[in-house]
Amino acid sequence: MLKGFRQRLLRVDLTNRRIWVEPIAEDVLRRFLGGSGLGAWYHFQETTASTDPLSPENLLGFFAGPATGTLVPTSGRHAVVARSPLTGLWGEADVGGRWGWTLKRAGYDGVLISGAADEPVYLWINDDEIEIRPAGHLWGKDTYSVDELIKGETTAKTVVGSIGPAGENLVKVAAIMFDGKDARAAGRTGLGAVMGSKKLKAIAVSGSQDVPVANPEGIRRLLQELLPLMKRQAQGMTNYGTAGGMVTIEEVGDLPIKNWQEGSWPEGAKKLSGQHMAETILVGRYYCASCVIGCGRVTEVKEGPYLTGRGAGPEYETLSTLGAMCLIDDIAAINYGGELCNRYGLDTISTGALIALAMEAYEKGYLSPEQTGGRPVKWGDPEIMLQLISDIAQRRGLGAILAEGVRASVKRLGLPPEFDLEVKGLELPAHDPRAYNSIAVGYATSNRGACHLQGFSHVLEKSVTLPELGYPELQDRFAVDGKGILTARAQDLMAIYDSLKMCKFSLFAGVKPTHMLTWLNYVTGWSMDMKEFLQIGERIFNLKRLYNLHLGVDGRQDTLPLRILQQKRSTGGAAENLPPLSQMLKEYYQYRGWDENGVPTSKKLAELGLEREAGS
Amino acid sequence: MLKGFRQRLLRVDLTNRRIWVEPIAEDVLRRFLGGSGLGAWYHFQETTASTDPLSPENLLGFFAGPATGTLVPTSGRHAVVARSPLTGLWGEADVGGRWGWTLKRAGYDGVLISGAADEPVYLWINDDEIEIRPAGHLWGKDTYSVDELIKGETTAKTVVGSIGPAGENLVKVAAIMFDGKDARAAGRTGLGAVMGSKKLKAIAVSGSQDVPVANPEGIRRLLQELLPLMKRQAQGMTNYGTAGGMVTIEEVGDLPIKNWQEGSWPEGAKKLSGQHMAETILVGRYYCASCVIGCGRVTEVKEGPYLTGRGAGPEYETLSTLGAMCLIDDIAAINYGGELCNRYGLDTISTGALIALAMEAYEKGYLSPEQTGGRPVKWGDPEIMLQLISDIAQRRGLGAILAEGVRASVKRLGLPPEFDLEVKGLELPAHDPRAYNSIAVGYATSNRGACHLQGFSHVLEKSVTLPELGYPELQDRFAVDGKGILTARAQDLMAIYDSLKMCKFSLFAGVKPTHMLTWLNYVTGWSMDMKEFLQIGERIFNLKRLYNLHLGVDGRQDTLPLRILQQKRSTGGAAENLPPLSQMLKEYYQYRGWDENGVPTSKKLAELGLEREAGS
Repeated sequence: MLKGFRQRLLRVDLTNRRIWVEPIAEDVLRRFLGGSGLGAWYHFQETTASTDPLSPENLLGFFAGPATGTLVPTSGRHAVVARSPLTGLWGEADVGGRWGWTLKRAGYDGVLISGAADEPVYLWINDDEIEIRPAGHLWGKDTYSVDELIKGETTAKTVVGSIGPAGENLVKVAAIMFDGKDARAAGRTGLGAVMGSKKLKAIAVSGSQDVPVANPEGIRRLLQELLPLMKRQAQGMTNYGTAGGMVTIEEVGDLPIKNWQEGSWPEGAKKLSGQHMAETILVGRYYCASCVIGCGRVTEVKEGPYLTGRGAGPEYETLSTLGAMCLIDDIAAINYGGELCNRYGLDTISTGALIALAMEAYEKGYLSPEQTGGRPVKWGDPEIMLQLISDIAQRRGLGAILAEGVRASVKRLGLPPEFDLEVKGLELPAHDPRAYNSIAVGYATSNRGACHLQGFSHVLEKSVTLPELGYPELQDRFAVDGKGILTARAQDLMAIYDSLKMCKFSLFAGVKPTHMLTWLNYVTGWSMDMKEFLQIGERIFNLKRLYNLHLGVDGRQDTLPLRILQQKRSTGGAAENLPPLSQMLKEYYQYRGWDENGVPTSKKLAELGLEREAGS
Repeated sequence: MLKGFRQRLLRVDLTNRRIWVEPIAEDVLRRFLGGSGLGAWYHFQETTASTDPLSPENLLGFFAGPATGTLVPTSGRHAVVARSPLTGLWGEADVGGRWGWTLKRAGYDGVLISGAADEPVYLWINDDEIEIRPAGHLWGKDTYSVDELIKGETTAKTVVGSIGPAGENLVKVAAIMFDGKDARAAGRTGLGAVMGSKKLKAIAVSGSQDVPVANPEGIRRLLQELLPLMKRQAQGMTNYGTAGGMVTIEEVGDLPIKNWQEGSWPEGAKKLSGQHMAETILVGRYYCASCVIGCGRVTEVKEGPYLTGRGAGPEYETLSTLGAMCLIDDIAAINYGGELCNRYGLDTISTGALIALAMEAYEKGYLSPEQTGGRPVKWGDPEIMLQLISDIAQRRGLGAILAEGVRASVKRLGLPPEFDLEVKGLELPAHDPRAYNSIAVGYATSNRGACHLQGFSHVLEKSVTLPELGYPELQDRFAVDGKGILTARAQDLMAIYDSLKMCKFSLFAGVKPTHMLTWLNYVTGWSMDMKEFLQIGERIFNLKRLYNLHLGVDGRQDTLPLRILQQKRSTGGAAENLPPLSQMLKEYYQYRGWDENGVPTSKKLAELGLEREAGS
């Protein structure tokens, strides 16, 4: 049995204002670990196909991982999960910062919110003292302000997760923001709107307890052994953040440019690079709890039109979507736009995609002067970008349409199908499936819709070897045979990352699955082997698939936007490649043990111990 | 598909003197790898429960591994497999040296012998030229002489595997010996008698072809990366051989002393230690093909009654069974006895066990003067030891009884049950299950009967950590909970070692399962992951179990000798421990997915893809 490995779920029913604590069964932990895996299990048990995402029946879960709160490096993360109002399907977002770490120190592995309050509230978790507090005075406030106000009402050490106006306004691309102006985002799948629908403005946490582990000495020893390697290997990430690879990413044709229409934009990429940021607006680095990499950027803009105070700077995704996607190369403007998204509580990826859609629609004559408020919505115009961010968050003018996401906007604006740049309702992040064939399979099959992080497979084609997965060498990004298998294995490993919860960037620091498994065993006191460990990822991925299948998904939704499938870009590092999706998907299904409709066979479900889940 | 990964089986039907070559299907290789796994698969397909071990219908297989013949360190091994005439069950033996390496260079992964010759023959494999040659002139000769004679008839580079007089005489503990006076033994389960029953004196091999691999550069790179670590970690093994641990092994109560009756013999252990050998009779070290450890001993005795020329010296097992088991502490005498066993072609482990049985039986009055030829069979007498070796090999006097093995000798001599020191008919090797609880589970469940190498689990309780198996720290040897699981996992890994074929001593040199998997992928061009890799071991172990189940084995045979289960030794490093076998076995069965009778459930067989095998 576990020595001191605590497993407690905090339950909050906002409708009835009930709060209670439940144990989490060890066999459930061993099958789903924590994070989004455990979150998926609760949703699978307790919601149905008729649960409306914005109804009180939807659950909103915040789950740390078994290692969160410990010294295990990069473990200081948590997952937010719910049925997504943007996609109507499985929704999850992965967050860094200090909130999950603090939740664990308050004595909880997760918080599961049900029901809805009848007026704005926030949840205050202070070790064993838990209160549902009125939040009328916070409603309408941006997330940076909310953070300061709640700290003032509680303690200076309190860590706050909150929605901004976007979540309150049920904007479908609303994020939940953590850590105030350090701004760690649960960005994707519109979970801020779920929080808004529950009238839950914030969850504030303070914790004073050590997180017990089975083998603290082992954890420390492995950390000491790996630390020099991790710091050395991650040096580029530490120095230049996630945008340190911007120039290379543009060179290989991986950067989305002008709403996925162009293949090359070298001058722009240079201006948006982490190196350029370091020379201009960078004033510091940010480390999440237990992190040794520090990819987070701290920026400040002291002159020009886009002044900001010291706070979280833009990551690669923000620079690409608010920048390259819109042909904007002014890093200060994007920094400002990023902060606006953070304060409003908006997913920068989906928001950038929506702005790029508007710019292309305007250029091609699909927007009327009434719809644009008479202003030209031109490529490369920072002012329009900033205006649209506010409009989306406030549901004003064109923003009221865009606030529903790309899929709905294409319909509402009557745009041709090639504008429909989403998978299963989620806007594409800033990695082009035409540059890495595995990204094509990954976007098409990710359970939360188009997502690079649910597969993260292209790192195996770029810079990371994973002998335990069968890839001791870098893989050819344009290969077709074996790509379905590679994607499936990467997704299963990422499902473990999202559940354990470790940061995927630890891969860039030399952390391998064997290290992850060892840390898990040290934390829990288990003696799990690699076979069982890797199978957990497969189980979790399949459970989320089952969740979506119950909502009507099948293989027909495992596809990509027309533009990605059919339109070569003619320039750049992947000018001629179009991913042969159906061929790769066939291999993927076969390897996964799914039938030709993308449904897991009963043999596969039995192998994964998911018979009961499948039958319910 | 495989790039250049060759997979060919040489078939020889001695009855009809037919020789042909067959491809080995890739899916079979991917499921069973090579070595004893692949050998088990052929036996499972092509023999029945009524196949008498000494009949022409029994198959005798010699299988190298996928990595044999390459630079992969410690890969130069092969397996010999057949239904065992000693146990009546699954028989296999694992051999080093250069024979397997040379077979691969001749273009074959294995040789499978069926039928029987009507007069003595030997097989001559010289690349594609293969002959069945007369061996009347070799019959009766010892293995060292046979090696020289065949080299004279073929080439100086020829590598010979042969039986000695013991195998010819169908002695049930007869070995097959390789590499002449370098003397690498396929010792266990009496396979020399199978070779003798086929009138096959020897298989001589010469090969001139490079062994193609998919990624030679990768193999070389990983070798270079690991080489310094391997050499450093294995330094003790290089310096002092397998008996370098003799003193410690005695201290912890792991050494069998006086036929498993005593717990302590420190002065004797010192005299039999690798350190003492290095100070006395050691003149060199022996490296198997592709080995970087060199645990093999080369000895020469130049004075005293036990003169030997330069040749293979005794290993730990020989020193323990001919030595400690018989209370003999004269290392030169044991060296001589070891060479006798090598020349006659006898398994030193079983032979030592038989001599110890005779000594105890004599002491306790169970042997008549007629049975002993009037000579006292006293503990500690080297002359008796040497005499009995010859008598067993020649089936003379008491040796004619002992030649049938311990189980049959106990019956024939009317000895009480506590003399019955075997499991499933195989004599115990020199590690005491009372010193390591996992050895108890391992001996009880090993598919070839009492064997430390089929589990090798005690290394996890002693000096080796295996994070991939869930054991990043050394385990408590006297623990009970978890021991069934640990043993099963270790057995599955060893099934991979026995099939790949790498040397298990690479574990002492820092080689981990991830390295093995990577090498396999480099050799084959596969992209196998760790889940599939570890499952291969489980599949192979279960296939051998199925083979034995078809021969009538069930859980009742998963037991240990009474002496081990019931008799504490009162002295030494494990004086008070008796392994609680039934409790550990329960966990073991459950973890394995076997029912309470030790039969794999259909669910487990389906999971392992062994439905077809189970149904046949």
